[in-house]
Amino acid sequence: MQVSETQWSSQEMAVAKTALKTAYERETASMVKSVREKASEISHVDDLWHLNDFLSARRFDIDGKYDDREEEVLFVLAKLIKEGWLAAADLDGLDSEKLTKMKALTHIL
Amino acid sequence: MQVSETQWSSQEMAVAKTALKTAYERETASMVKSVREKASEISHVDDLWHLNDFLSARRFDIDGKYDDREEEVLFVLAKLIKEGWLAAADLDGLDSEKLTKMKALTHIL
Repeated sequence: MQVSETQWSSQEMAVAKTALKTAYERETASMVKSVREKASEISHVDDLWHLNDFLSARRFDIDGKYDDREEEVLFVLAKLIKEGWLAAADLDGLDSEKLTKMKALTHIL
Repeated sequence: MQVSETQWSSQEMAVAKTALKTAYERETASMVKSVREKASEISHVDDLWHLNDFLSARRFDIDGKYDDREEEVLFVLAKLIKEGWLAAADLDGLDSEKLTKMKALTHIL
């Protein structure tokens, strides 16, 4: 599967970037909710450092994850589908070849 | 003021260590309360990263602060008095020379 040679039209890249933005909003909103819940249970200084470690790890993950370069975006979208941040409807406008490759990638990633 | 040459008896070191422990409990309990309050106001991913930066800075500060080595402890106690985590009553058992030096240090630090 020649994922790296996939060609993207400007319209498709716009769909991909909108999908990334949607997924980012969903994932970070979920994280905000989760941290508020975690924080309400904090009772000791060790809980603070666990929260600190959790936030550092999530920040590192998210900073590197939403890569919208053409050579990476198919992998990124597939990962976001697998993680549940995107659904098929968010990718309307991409050609069937890309959707097929993405579906295959969700089984590999 | 020859702070570094201050001599500590084992009884005085015990008083100092107990005071450090007391201050640590007070400071970290206050931080737990403050983080729970901050976290309840989180509404956006940027707030998460601000909380992460806040926790990292406070952790770095606290990790380095509670130094109970004999050559450092007078400075540490003076700093904790200045910051409000210790009161004069927490240092009962130290000789008057140390208390005077500590009081002077709180004006310098």
